[in-house]
Amino acid sequence: MAAILDEADKFASEVLAPLNRVGDIQGCRLEDGNVATPAGWQEAYRTFRAGGWPTIAAPHEYGGQGMPKLVAAAVMEMWQASNLAFSLMPLLSTGAAEALQIAASEPIKQKYLPKLVSGQWGGTMNLTEPQAGSDLAALRARAEPAADGSYRIFGQKIFITYGEHQLTDNILHLVLARLPDAPPGVKGISLFLVPKYLVNDDGALGDRNDVRCVSVEHKLGIHASPTCVMAYGDNSGAIGYLVGEPSHGLEYMFVMMNEARFGVGLQGIAIAERAYQQALAYAHERIQGRDALTGEGSVPIAAHPDVRRMLMLMQSRTQAARMLAYWVVGQFDVAHAHTDAYERERAHQLVDFLIPIVKGWSTEVGNDSAYLGVQIHGGMGFVEETGAAQHMRDARILTIYEGTTGIQANDLLTRKLLRDNGSSLKQLLACMRADLDSLRSIDDQRIKGLVPPMEASLVHFESAALSLIERGKTNLGAVMFVAVPFLMLAGTVCGAWQWGKAVLAASRRLGDGTGDARFHREQIELAHFYMAHVATGASALAETVAHGAHEWGMGA
Amino acid sequence: MAAILDEADKFASEVLAPLNRVGDIQGCRLEDGNVATPAGWQEAYRTFRAGGWPTIAAPHEYGGQGMPKLVAAAVMEMWQASNLAFSLMPLLSTGAAEALQIAASEPIKQKYLPKLVSGQWGGTMNLTEPQAGSDLAALRARAEPAADGSYRIFGQKIFITYGEHQLTDNILHLVLARLPDAPPGVKGISLFLVPKYLVNDDGALGDRNDVRCVSVEHKLGIHASPTCVMAYGDNSGAIGYLVGEPSHGLEYMFVMMNEARFGVGLQGIAIAERAYQQALAYAHERIQGRDALTGEGSVPIAAHPDVRRMLMLMQSRTQAARMLAYWVVGQFDVAHAHTDAYERERAHQLVDFLIPIVKGWSTEVGNDSAYLGVQIHGGMGFVEETGAAQHMRDARILTIYEGTTGIQANDLLTRKLLRDNGSSLKQLLACMRADLDSLRSIDDQRIKGLVPPMEASLVHFESAALSLIERGKTNLGAVMFVAVPFLMLAGTVCGAWQWGKAVLAASRRLGDGTGDARFHREQIELAHFYMAHVATGASALAETVAHGAHEWGMGA
Repeated sequence: MAAILDEADKFASEVLAPLNRVGDIQGCRLEDGNVATPAGWQEAYRTFRAGGWPTIAAPHEYGGQGMPKLVAAAVMEMWQASNLAFSLMPLLSTGAAEALQIAASEPIKQKYLPKLVSGQWGGTMNLTEPQAGSDLAALRARAEPAADGSYRIFGQKIFITYGEHQLTDNILHLVLARLPDAPPGVKGISLFLVPKYLVNDDGALGDRNDVRCVSVEHKLGIHASPTCVMAYGDNSGAIGYLVGEPSHGLEYMFVMMNEARFGVGLQGIAIAERAYQQALAYAHERIQGRDALTGEGSVPIAAHPDVRRMLMLMQSRTQAARMLAYWVVGQFDVAHAHTDAYERERAHQLVDFLIPIVKGWSTEVGNDSAYLGVQIHGGMGFVEETGAAQHMRDARILTIYEGTTGIQANDLLTRKLLRDNGSSLKQLLACMRADLDSLRSIDDQRIKGLVPPMEASLVHFESAALSLIERGKTNLGAVMFVAVPFLMLAGTVCGAWQWGKAVLAASRRLGDGTGDARFHREQIELAHFYMAHVATGASALAETVAHGAHEWGMGA
Repeated sequence: MAAILDEADKFASEVLAPLNRVGDIQGCRLEDGNVATPAGWQEAYRTFRAGGWPTIAAPHEYGGQGMPKLVAAAVMEMWQASNLAFSLMPLLSTGAAEALQIAASEPIKQKYLPKLVSGQWGGTMNLTEPQAGSDLAALRARAEPAADGSYRIFGQKIFITYGEHQLTDNILHLVLARLPDAPPGVKGISLFLVPKYLVNDDGALGDRNDVRCVSVEHKLGIHASPTCVMAYGDNSGAIGYLVGEPSHGLEYMFVMMNEARFGVGLQGIAIAERAYQQALAYAHERIQGRDALTGEGSVPIAAHPDVRRMLMLMQSRTQAARMLAYWVVGQFDVAHAHTDAYERERAHQLVDFLIPIVKGWSTEVGNDSAYLGVQIHGGMGFVEETGAAQHMRDARILTIYEGTTGIQANDLLTRKLLRDNGSSLKQLLACMRADLDSLRSIDDQRIKGLVPPMEASLVHFESAALSLIERGKTNLGAVMFVAVPFLMLAGTVCGAWQWGKAVLAASRRLGDGTGDARFHREQIELAHFYMAHVATGASALAETVAHGAHEWGMGA
């Protein structure tokens, strides 16, 4: 694992990171139906493929390396931190591969999956239509059965990430559409595979399919990631193949979406880390002002109390969000691979509960860190050449795509908390309490000092959640009105819990005398910082959850 | 006053607002030392001048209309909301005029002020140098005395807003520089007037001075406002005139800076309002999704609980920040014009205490609102054509220029709170308590319900402030570490107080039966929203102020 991470680090810093600003400046251009990616993109993608990176977590049977998702996540975070726009390409392709694995028939899998997994072909997800943003029930794209068992797809899809490009020989579009006899609403949606180039039975590329990119969005950030408007069937209909059962399209998408949402949560952490590293370097280089206490002239701005506070805020929240995400992806692996069915189910429940928190909270953390990164740069942060502003622009999409923060919060509240009447919540609280007990038993005053604020935040979270379950029974609108404050509360408290786990690890290593003692002691101090500067927000959020909907809930 | 506001509204919506996006797209170009402003800018500025808008609050003796600053602020907010980049031009010119009024000799005033006041000439402020961002002690620009009593200025200044343009016949640069015998540090800084074109005794323009714009920054936002690098004295030295006494430059700047900081705080409110209005309109136009409770299809997104929450958050904070700013600018007028010296002094103290809060808090509110504005637009918010993203980009400078949020917080903490040992704070708390008592005496349960949360937030603020005064005596580094959380606490609580005042007004009008009863009732509900969603943060911030610096203050 260490070797893989080292190699990924090398590729991210040496190849992807230098292209990040080039991509921002050049962006993508649509020319005669082709999308030109920025200078260096083609070569970078070739090297990426040659290194076998696309295959890392894919199953062996389709040419993957079958690594745990935890490893894949750590690697993916590096692509994202070094070049968010580039990282979307493998993220989407992996998502498409997952969907095919879950739902496609064996012949489709055999024909398409190996080349998708190897990165020779790209993959996209086509959900959104102009009249239907987050509301998939309103989808209108249609699929007409053809005599040969395939379908003809008609309709327009928008916001399609890497919908068209020249990085791969072919692109496999996964498209949600309706069959002629399908029921209205979300129940009538089926999933189709629509390749850019048709694939002959021998695997060679055939004719160009009736799908094309008709425009590329002019966006605030991630300029190098082409966000396409895709037209299906402008001529005779795009040839598509049904994936799985008719009318089960949304179900397959939801399974895959869990992973995509996790991936976007990770993007929040990645951009937070990138912004932090850049701000940290700047704060140590930039000499300005006098020491507030000694009056000594010309100190690096990192010496100024408020700059130090901002750096610690970025660092402690980013690490909290990362620890949570990595813990969740570890549970993903448990849910897939544990030998004990009960453990698998328990892990599965925790993952389902925590995914909207990872997505919703980490992406807000990412935006906030990018904002602070600009702030630490002062006037230079507002100048584009510095690069701090790009992180802020790039980060802005993260709380929107793959379901807005509001949608994550509704998912957490209604599907994950109310629907199972708090049973997943109880699993999570049990994990938290167990770690709190371990912390309490450590014979170290500095560590014991973390227990009261951590416990307080946990109690705020628990009582807010229980009151939502109760109130949700009679006034759904009122509780939905405070869904986002509840999600932020959950994220804040999960972060405190994860800092508790970090301190347990640090204390173990300090006791053993292993590792870098200075690092471990710093971890304990960062945990204190988090409790005093971030976890303090739990009481305020709990109060908002308790009182914020009295008159303003939809049903009130 | 109503007529003035109506006219300003017309000019802002009909002339300035339509140019906002043009300005963003075209930006400014430096060509042969001249800066070309975007299409339509020249005409807009001509109309602006013809309407007499630059003169609104200037004194009669220099051709101004002598209006109260409260009126000028309301008018200025409209320029800022409709076109932030444009509004910087009059803001800077007004600042330069203030500086001359405060400090310049009568001959200089007579020669330059009338044309600056009328908007025939523009004005700039030249503080920052590459090696000295916020740290004015490190300034190196120098001024050499010439035989005729003028000076020759040498040096480079950066981040000079509207440093060069063709909107006016002449530009008056106010430049901080050092005389040859000046002491080091901030005490050796003098203020000079350096006109772009020298002015003959008869008022006609003479030779071009030795000052030029050598580059224009490529910025995240406010593209249409040229941010210039200015070179003084590349040839024989730029001819400058000493303003006021030698070595008192910083003092004059500070007086003027109070007003400039207020103006930037107002920009935060303006951009928050603009983002709110745009998001509100979009939320009512955009049909998507089903009603969460009734299941009814195709509702405007404003019907979704979380969209409604975001809109109310934007609205309630923006109004709170505006009420505070307008109250402060009203006290400005009292401090200038009240007949009673005690009242003038009291108002002056309140203004001084509150300016860093208006600047620091309102600009953070502005950024946060612009962020939420994008969020409400969903995917469309990330697409530049929508315009929501521009507000977010434009807003990002506001927490940085005229002193970062950290600098405002240090000013509030050290100069305004610690230095006078809490005496200004007590004035402010007395105002708050008086309004709280009035609220308490109103015989209306809905209104009485506001008293406990408002009082709680006030108590958090007071005790945090008193503890800072106490701890600041022995550990300045520790209290400076929590200066920004304290400033945010102060802003949050001032907002709650202002909502209390708004409710008092609404209750009076409801009692009288005057005005729009529905509006007044909505105000009371918005006040409740603010208490439950914003003022709740006071306890968390107070806790951070109390515990956030134990180990991490600079001196700890």
